Amino acid sequence: MTQTLKTPETSQANRNRRTALVRAFTEPKGFGDATLRNPRPDAIELLGGIPDPGLLPTAELSEAAVRVLARPGAPALQYGRTRGWPELLSWISEREDVPVEQLLITNGGFHGLNLAVSLVVERGDPVAVDNPVFPLFLRGLEISDARVVPIGVDSKGLDVDHLEEILRAGQRISAVYTVPDFHNPSQGSLSQQRRRKLVELAEEHDFHVIADNPYREINFTGAPVDVSAFNGSDRVIHVNTFTKTLGPGLRLGWIRLPEELAADAIALRSRQDSHTSLLVQAIVAEYLTSDPGAFDRQLARANQVYAGRARTLVDALDRELPGFFDLQVPEGGFFLWPRLQDDSIDADALAASASRHGVEYQRGSFFPSGPGTDSDRRLRLSYSNVGEDRLDLAARQLAGAVAALRAQ
Amino acid sequence: MTQTLKTPETSQANRNRRTALVRAFTEPKGFGDATLRNPRPDAIELLGGIPDPGLLPTAELSEAAVRVLARPGAPALQYGRTRGWPELLSWISEREDVPVEQLLITNGGFHGLNLAVSLVVERGDPVAVDNPVFPLFLRGLEISDARVVPIGVDSKGLDVDHLEEILRAGQRISAVYTVPDFHNPSQGSLSQQRRRKLVELAEEHDFHVIADNPYREINFTGAPVDVSAFNGSDRVIHVNTFTKTLGPGLRLGWIRLPEELAADAIALRSRQDSHTSLLVQAIVAEYLTSDPGAFDRQLARANQVYAGRARTLVDALDRELPGFFDLQVPEGGFFLWPRLQDDSIDADALAASASRHGVEYQRGSFFPSGPGTDSDRRLRLSYSNVGEDRLDLAARQLAGAVAALRAQ
Repeated sequence: MTQTLKTPETSQANRNRRTALVRAFTEPKGFGDATLRNPRPDAIELLGGIPDPGLLPTAELSEAAVRVLARPGAPALQYGRTRGWPELLSWISEREDVPVEQLLITNGGFHGLNLAVSLVVERGDPVAVDNPVFPLFLRGLEISDARVVPIGVDSKGLDVDHLEEILRAGQRISAVYTVPDFHNPSQGSLSQQRRRKLVELAEEHDFHVIADNPYREINFTGAPVDVSAFNGSDRVIHVNTFTKTLGPGLRLGWIRLPEELAADAIALRSRQDSHTSLLVQAIVAEYLTSDPGAFDRQLARANQVYAGRARTLVDALDRELPGFFDLQVPEGGFFLWPRLQDDSIDADALAASASRHGVEYQRGSFFPSGPGTDSDRRLRLSYSNVGEDRLDLAARQLAGAVAALRAQ
Repeated sequence: MTQTLKTPETSQANRNRRTALVRAFTEPKGFGDATLRNPRPDAIELLGGIPDPGLLPTAELSEAAVRVLARPGAPALQYGRTRGWPELLSWISEREDVPVEQLLITNGGFHGLNLAVSLVVERGDPVAVDNPVFPLFLRGLEISDARVVPIGVDSKGLDVDHLEEILRAGQRISAVYTVPDFHNPSQGSLSQQRRRKLVELAEEHDFHVIADNPYREINFTGAPVDVSAFNGSDRVIHVNTFTKTLGPGLRLGWIRLPEELAADAIALRSRQDSHTSLLVQAIVAEYLTSDPGAFDRQLARANQVYAGRARTLVDALDRELPGFFDLQVPEGGFFLWPRLQDDSIDADALAASASRHGVEYQRGSFFPSGPGTDSDRRLRLSYSNVGEDRLDLAARQLAGAVAALRAQ
């Protein structure tokens, strides 16, 4: 989420004294830097998985904060249980149909990944991951100095048949990492058949699945995502967050764990930072429970806007650059992952030209976890935090960038 | 901060698959359980280092929350930099006279300890710690599976001369852990001479000092605590928190780091949970900066009450149990650490009798990190969250408990 600040002045002596934990951290590559570099006010930024602040329930959270802080004895300012604030746990338990004993509140989705990796990935272990992959997960995985085993992702999500092949060929893994719903960056969702097979493989080959699900509620299909294969399995750590729905700045999420890992998760968490801010947990719980329909109404409102933006961006690209991209209309999430059809276009040169024409996006080449993808022929375009007029303009500017490139 | 929930049903298979990180965690002992067990409404609880909710600026934080969430674009709900919210960093930097580059915002003091240990303690390394010690630190230290080297603490804090002796005798350590101001549990503060010598030893013997300072602002002396020896050293990680001043539930603190560790700290944090809740940081920054004198006025008000309670408890014990304890009037912090003068009193039996008479406290025997202390002849009595009338009553009930014990 930020660049690290390795300085050349770091003394050799100090470098030698760094713990093995820290020595496993690599220098940041393009993705993390670009995501949190200073915004360019003169450009249209299609960069991050960022919810539109205008679509967050800011006023409702403000009112909830006032009510929470007016409670006698200010319980939200006192110590709490590591697992989480009871009202928030109850709400999640009921909505997810998961026992409280299998839940742990986290400081957002990325923290859930950190806990999951710490619990099930021994240092140096091989871990199978999406290819292409959410790049920051690879950075997160460095806390266990893990070896990455890339597994392709297609329009139906992780290629579970390929995973099975390499397992049958003798590859041992301690975990699989995948984004099952509205994949980042590649849009697809893991089919129900693949979900079931993934869980069966986990049982058969003795590994855990880390299912990272930040976008599941950003759903344009009209039907809820079915996560029962994950929430019912004693092989899956299901990582959830309020980041995309209520705001990244809260740093609030939860993991659903197999019951046999729950005690270890709490033991780890109680050695890390005790528990997630009770003030944040209490504010969100108050928002979710004081008006029981509020969250779903909020989601419906936001998803209508996000779906409209996705459609607008697709239409604008079709109009301004007909046939230039192979693309799918997103069914959810924040990203479009179009593929360049013209093999003569240099993708890096296009990104540079787009930047000169006032459009910033993430290059597809940031996303592979291994060879064998067409990611370097793709763009990751985030439409979540850009209005429809600006998305139209972005498509026109991108067309200008393509024209300029072809004129060179 | 909570009990872990090791269940006997945990399968042997699962136990074998636990990561080395988790395998190093031991079962909780008395202290953690007692701190967060359910409160006894029928008893006077002198248990935890808990600020009185009536002495927290609840209304001001509520008003700050409303103002923060009314800002255009809701920046407190968006992603932020790992180091922290700029307004909060600036406030700390100015107050502490420390460059922002040496600061990192944390999820409270315990999280600062976790980061410090992860940065400077290699797995299995020896770490010198206070004896007696804040027991939860020993639990936190298990993330590095460290070996504990106990160093005595007296009325002037850590016995730095003894530390020097064992270092000269060849003991290698990677860190020293101490609570320098208003020690938990033993009340004393590290003298300026010892601070300077500790830093010199760290330079000479190539270790880091983890200075854990949650109580420094709970100061009854009228003169500010002098932390310059720590904030100016490239050998000290100074761990601070708003827990005792603004509320544990916020989960908000900061560490001041040597500049050469700062990049690694940010690299670690960005792999852990990205950053502390911006909403929490923004609310507290708004409270601290919108009325620049508010925090110090709040501290003065709270410390007057805490000092009065400390005095009341000392006077009541002197009155109800004259000569029974050897005790010092606290100069700050939340704890009285009286010593039993009568060797015929069984300290565990006294705690049990006190519990029957309606007074709960922490037994001194929970606090040693090694042999050689008189901790098992002491009681840790927390006066921070109990009114003066109830402290008087606690002393009377304790006298009843002693009488009952002697009558047995």
